[in-house]
Amino acid sequence: MNIRIESERITRELETLAAFSEAPAPAVTRIVFSEQDRRARTWLKQLYAEAGLRVREDAVGNTFARLAGADENLAAVATGSHTDAIPHSGRFDGTVGVLGGLEAIRALQRSGYQPRRSVELIMFTAEEPTRFGIGCLGSRLMASTLDAGAGDRLRDSEGRTLNEVRHGAGFAGELESVALQPGCYAAFVELHIEQGPLLERRNLPVGVVTAIAAPASLWITVEGQGGHAGAVLMRDRHDAFSAAAEIALTLESAARSTGAVDSVATTGLCEVFPGAINSIPSRVRLAVDIRDIDEARRDGMLAELERACAEIAAKREVGISSEWVNRDAPAACDPKIVSALRDACRTSALELDLMVSRAYHDSLFMSRVCPSGMIFVPCRDGISHRPEEYASPEWIAQGALVLAEALANLAG
Amino acid sequence: MNIRIESERITRELETLAAFSEAPAPAVTRIVFSEQDRRARTWLKQLYAEAGLRVREDAVGNTFARLAGADENLAAVATGSHTDAIPHSGRFDGTVGVLGGLEAIRALQRSGYQPRRSVELIMFTAEEPTRFGIGCLGSRLMASTLDAGAGDRLRDSEGRTLNEVRHGAGFAGELESVALQPGCYAAFVELHIEQGPLLERRNLPVGVVTAIAAPASLWITVEGQGGHAGAVLMRDRHDAFSAAAEIALTLESAARSTGAVDSVATTGLCEVFPGAINSIPSRVRLAVDIRDIDEARRDGMLAELERACAEIAAKREVGISSEWVNRDAPAACDPKIVSALRDACRTSALELDLMVSRAYHDSLFMSRVCPSGMIFVPCRDGISHRPEEYASPEWIAQGALVLAEALANLAG
Repeated sequence: MNIRIESERITRELETLAAFSEAPAPAVTRIVFSEQDRRARTWLKQLYAEAGLRVREDAVGNTFARLAGADENLAAVATGSHTDAIPHSGRFDGTVGVLGGLEAIRALQRSGYQPRRSVELIMFTAEEPTRFGIGCLGSRLMASTLDAGAGDRLRDSEGRTLNEVRHGAGFAGELESVALQPGCYAAFVELHIEQGPLLERRNLPVGVVTAIAAPASLWITVEGQGGHAGAVLMRDRHDAFSAAAEIALTLESAARSTGAVDSVATTGLCEVFPGAINSIPSRVRLAVDIRDIDEARRDGMLAELERACAEIAAKREVGISSEWVNRDAPAACDPKIVSALRDACRTSALELDLMVSRAYHDSLFMSRVCPSGMIFVPCRDGISHRPEEYASPEWIAQGALVLAEALANLAG
Repeated sequence: MNIRIESERITRELETLAAFSEAPAPAVTRIVFSEQDRRARTWLKQLYAEAGLRVREDAVGNTFARLAGADENLAAVATGSHTDAIPHSGRFDGTVGVLGGLEAIRALQRSGYQPRRSVELIMFTAEEPTRFGIGCLGSRLMASTLDAGAGDRLRDSEGRTLNEVRHGAGFAGELESVALQPGCYAAFVELHIEQGPLLERRNLPVGVVTAIAAPASLWITVEGQGGHAGAVLMRDRHDAFSAAAEIALTLESAARSTGAVDSVATTGLCEVFPGAINSIPSRVRLAVDIRDIDEARRDGMLAELERACAEIAAKREVGISSEWVNRDAPAACDPKIVSALRDACRTSALELDLMVSRAYHDSLFMSRVCPSGMIFVPCRDGISHRPEEYASPEWIAQGALVLAEALANLAG
């Protein structure tokens, strides 16, 4: 079997996809169910149709493109990733797994290979938490780790519910129907840029992921007392922003002091109320993201955060409360999939590194449903979620080649 | 002369004015040149007309209502304050000086008193910095401490210039024409709520202000490095929000450690870019407000802030820059005005306290143009810039009475 990846074609398609963006190039902003996201979806389905794949969309917009296998009664083998992009980010995060996955399937078709199991490409809805505050919306619903009540519960910043927005985008049906049946997939493999610097530093083309970090995120609300910035004496203040600043610094310090490089914590959003240059902040909301590949270590950071919040609340006489966005367990990738990916690297004559994923991915939730694994390709300087994000055509093609070999192997 | 203040009328008019608001009661939001501000202006001009006052508006919307004196060639005596309100604030800040000032003039009319000098009520445009980022816009232009180039330079959050917005609100003419001629006013007295707790604590009805604090405000921009909240190791981070948190805490600590209760510092706004729960902040802007009645002590806090910014920038390898919004000198109130206000208290049989104003006011800029002073009335618990802001009808009426006596005395 002679599998050949058309690297220029992936590059061209990535470029076209990047242009569906609310931010001007090189930045990409593509929020789920926005005008640009909907245009991108239409274009992708056209590509799938041109490749002769059978397309299905579920109630939340997860899109499945199937290359029928010789025996359609067998569980399919799947690959895929996401195409939504956080504000002002880059063009490779997620998209490499969708367009690289598509090219892997086309390469299998060109090679004359006829799979026994069907091969499916999945484009997951809203891997990014931008609009509804929770990441991996599509795959969480598929894995039943998020209940269908989320349709009325989750709202965007304009107060519209997930159900209102998905209906507006043309995705009808009950959210319950998104959940996958056990055994529906024999395997899932996601191709993704590393979003870290290790592969490039070691000059290695492929990373085979063995574990995915355990993410937790929460909103912390500080309720202090407002007032005039000139008139209220310092000793009479209960400044919500000062308290929030201490919380953010405590969290950073907790992540730095676990002794493990895999511990990370970030305060990515800060909303200040009432928000005037001459007004003491009365209320501040922080969005906090904490991750580790070791769940106990991650929960240790959470405990430290909780302790610090109690101390700061007492010291400053402010109220501090928190609300979980998500708190997921880490996933170990399936040993059989890891082994299949190592074999595929050997067949492709590509050196690999075994590594962990610090970012989390739809694979984290697919691993609840079927044996799953991930292929990483390098990205320059480890930069991601920024306009400068870059993966070379060669890196992407090498990843797509390993993916195609692995899919062929897994589909039999 | 028998001067009698109609307290219920002021209360009723304050209530009507409070309803011109973008926020629901009890909160008040009235941004300069918004629909609600324009409706409030129309209503106020109607009140002036009913009182038989001659109304003039300048190119930036400062509004002057004149009770003609016996000798119109003499410099007039003026009072006044502002009616704009920051987001989610209360109904007494500024408005007490406009509606209380109007009632003081009506009380003079009712008493049969005929002033030698004309008496003018001024409603200053945009004392609050909400829309254009700088406080006392109208009085700064009147005092020529802000140049007319500000018309094209200052922009609101939607990018519209001051000139565009004021033209849209019907205020044409050149901004140069707003500047007052030297000698145009013989005196200016502003009636205002204290915005602090001292009068109420001491159970005193009136504060006569001897000095107004020196305010400085600036935007601080931190340029760090963004990236994926999961993938970038803590040791590789240059998190703009963490740096900003340190800056805010340093500033708070600088204000707390001058040894003087009159030193205050506030971080009232914090903008985080790109602003996603799973993205490391690459850029943060803080709006900072620093005040003291002692200019040298205030500048000491600024120096400490600058030193800390340099240290934080070096330690975290981030860029930190700042841009002045304003940096004003404190003002001592005119001894003759202070003396006239003490006399007016005596005539009204009201006890007074001499005090400083920690908040700044249009009086700070009027003091550059003519002999100026301020009358404070208590406000409950010292609360201001919040919906709970409250001054009793009796407190307001006592302040208006002292103002009327002083205006009669100063107008001769």
